[in-house]
Amino acid sequence: MFVPGLIERKRDGGSLGSEEWRDLLAAYADGRVPDYQMAALLMACFLRGLGREETAGLLDGMMASGGRLDLAHLGRPVVDKHSTGGVGDKVSLVLAPLVAACGIVVPMMSGRGLGHTGGTLDKLESIPGFRTALSLEETLAQLARVGCAMIGQTPEIAPVDKKLYALRDVTATVECIPLISASIMSKKLSEGLTGLVLDVKLGSGAFITDEGRSRELAETMIRLGEDRGCPTVALLTAMDRPLGRACGNALEAEEAINALKGEGPEDLHDLTIAEGVEMLLLGRKTPPSAASRAAAVAELEEAITSGRAAEQFQRIIEAQGGNPAVVDDPGLLPTAPRVEVFRATHGGTVLRVEPRAIGRAIVQMGGGRQKVDDVVDPSVGMVISARPGQAVEKGEALASIYARDEDGVTIARRSLEQSIAIGEGKASPLPLIAARITAQGFEPLV
Amino acid sequence: MFVPGLIERKRDGGSLGSEEWRDLLAAYADGRVPDYQMAALLMACFLRGLGREETAGLLDGMMASGGRLDLAHLGRPVVDKHSTGGVGDKVSLVLAPLVAACGIVVPMMSGRGLGHTGGTLDKLESIPGFRTALSLEETLAQLARVGCAMIGQTPEIAPVDKKLYALRDVTATVECIPLISASIMSKKLSEGLTGLVLDVKLGSGAFITDEGRSRELAETMIRLGEDRGCPTVALLTAMDRPLGRACGNALEAEEAINALKGEGPEDLHDLTIAEGVEMLLLGRKTPPSAASRAAAVAELEEAITSGRAAEQFQRIIEAQGGNPAVVDDPGLLPTAPRVEVFRATHGGTVLRVEPRAIGRAIVQMGGGRQKVDDVVDPSVGMVISARPGQAVEKGEALASIYARDEDGVTIARRSLEQSIAIGEGKASPLPLIAARITAQGFEPLV
Repeated sequence: MFVPGLIERKRDGGSLGSEEWRDLLAAYADGRVPDYQMAALLMACFLRGLGREETAGLLDGMMASGGRLDLAHLGRPVVDKHSTGGVGDKVSLVLAPLVAACGIVVPMMSGRGLGHTGGTLDKLESIPGFRTALSLEETLAQLARVGCAMIGQTPEIAPVDKKLYALRDVTATVECIPLISASIMSKKLSEGLTGLVLDVKLGSGAFITDEGRSRELAETMIRLGEDRGCPTVALLTAMDRPLGRACGNALEAEEAINALKGEGPEDLHDLTIAEGVEMLLLGRKTPPSAASRAAAVAELEEAITSGRAAEQFQRIIEAQGGNPAVVDDPGLLPTAPRVEVFRATHGGTVLRVEPRAIGRAIVQMGGGRQKVDDVVDPSVGMVISARPGQAVEKGEALASIYARDEDGVTIARRSLEQSIAIGEGKASPLPLIAARITAQGFEPLV
Repeated sequence: MFVPGLIERKRDGGSLGSEEWRDLLAAYADGRVPDYQMAALLMACFLRGLGREETAGLLDGMMASGGRLDLAHLGRPVVDKHSTGGVGDKVSLVLAPLVAACGIVVPMMSGRGLGHTGGTLDKLESIPGFRTALSLEETLAQLARVGCAMIGQTPEIAPVDKKLYALRDVTATVECIPLISASIMSKKLSEGLTGLVLDVKLGSGAFITDEGRSRELAETMIRLGEDRGCPTVALLTAMDRPLGRACGNALEAEEAINALKGEGPEDLHDLTIAEGVEMLLLGRKTPPSAASRAAAVAELEEAITSGRAAEQFQRIIEAQGGNPAVVDDPGLLPTAPRVEVFRATHGGTVLRVEPRAIGRAIVQMGGGRQKVDDVVDPSVGMVISARPGQAVEKGEALASIYARDEDGVTIARRSLEQSIAIGEGKASPLPLIAARITAQGFEPLV
């Protein structure tokens, strides 16, 4: 394998074969190919693109670098979901226990906060004692016993993805649809799934803000999943404002717990149910119809109102070393020393609540990482009650700020001033769920 | 300085400002920016290109990374030449002493063999004792005393270029005109020149085989030189066959010594004189005319026939620790243990003598490097008497092979079979000098 020759071919618009990707990624994983050669290749990939077949070769090479959960012996459907990330997106914390409570095995492998977006692992770790770093063995045992595990990428799963991702992050090669798709799918398909739901975010707070490219991303991932025997469905959902009200790790954990009990904000509830329906239908291989969807909604709602969903979350927390009492008493979650109310300086209609400024502020307040080894303060964040379209009066409370010090309050206040636009006119937020995409095609939902 | 942001801008077709290049290259030089970020940026540069102004910013940043020879106190013209490299191109070994013998200071900083091409330093080091690694101080002293030094890049001159070049070599980012131009010119302009002659090779044995791109390279370098106050002239010359007859380090040194005494092959002599004329005219700021050219030719020819050019080379060799007796007795150069004659297997016209196969074979025979730390055997190579257009008979000697063992003979024999095409028809070699390019424009010479 002559690496400069491979880079040259990609640079000149050619493509690498599946075996070449596999050998190259294996060599990169064990350090025989240095970061600088991979960085040059990734930039060539970014600028030249990868076709359908080559993206599949890349994905297969990434999966070949690691192991794979084998859950066939459980004899049960295994379904997961992945979100492309946003601000206030705590759906995973509600969805995983909820769907597991309905009998689907959910091996949820998630990530940490990235850029302006929060990460499921950081939110879970705001629960005292909660361990997300399970071994492959622990994960398998927990899935058999509890039906759900909520963990970080284990060292066995697509290890080269982790290394590649870190490199892409510092070489401006992140926002590339084939690379993103292969990265996400290498982890998800290594979970031994029988179905996968993708939540692809649209709008200014999404990583990819162009709707056409979001759709392309969804379609690329669906193809990769379906071609490898994993039925995959994507929903295109709104990220032009935060999802729910709470933004910040412990605040979001609390809101998720409320949602598990049927007491969460409406948008969070509706999106969780919509994704849950897709997971149940995929898991049970039920053809979607008005009747099958209605039955799935009823089943999920019953799991919430009966308390089974919340109990399932308690079992997961307990299995992973956390304090399950937080589900009954969210006051056990870490709390910020400073709480301040943010009020409207003038009356009018809330035109926008821009998520990116909020997400960035939370990182700066200590609720996310600016460097890889920063320690996250789970307590900080904001709870934003203002919603696009809402009429507000001067002096009305729009948000609460949770900070560790005055600096944090200032950062949050500035971000809210920047984020919440109040004026005359009409708000035009994106629909919560704009479309559903499957192997069969694109289905607008509005 | 946020490096991923700079990479991203270049990736998306933007450009970096002069200060950004300067800061980035300074940080790269001292290890604050890692190779992998520079590799991603170089690939983005390769695929997006650099405009005229940005190339100048890159060049200035590279020069700022190091020092600069200050030769103003000599009160004499300082002129150098650079060749883009080829097979059998030993012009520098003849030209530097020849032009220095005419009173021009020649601070010739050269490189080593690269790919299929030979390097001036390797050829010089075939002279017993010859040291090319002079310090900046030694170089300055020698230029004042002898009027010429023939050296490798000192650590003080554009050090970041050396680091960048090594990285480009292993990341498939070499063949990029702005990067090549800035690399060459950063070294040459750091020599404190009052004039520069470029020998840009055309044809299958050149690094850049496309004539339009060779011309673009010449024009880019001329612009960079002229904009920085260094009058620059380029000749576009033939590299569709080896230059001269000798290929291989000691063999080329011997041929160069012969040429210094007026006993070299015609093409080597003619090209050396043509480049020497440009150097004299530039050095003396003489406007080119038929008369001034004729005078320069006469002066150069006189330096050869009088023996002053050969004596000048002896002084250089002596100053750099080599044995000056090689000029009188080239038999003191290392010789190969095996010498074999290569003969025509059939009669006809020599249609082609392909240089690339010859250059590659010499590397494989031990006369060049396959890895950075390979030791070069100066004795090996070939002397090829066959010239395109020549009529040959079956059994006629076409070349002599100089090898250290039977394997070397086999490699050389195979390359000659591949390189020398004999058949019916007419050879159509490139003209030795196809064009002259200056800031004033392009002047075809055929």
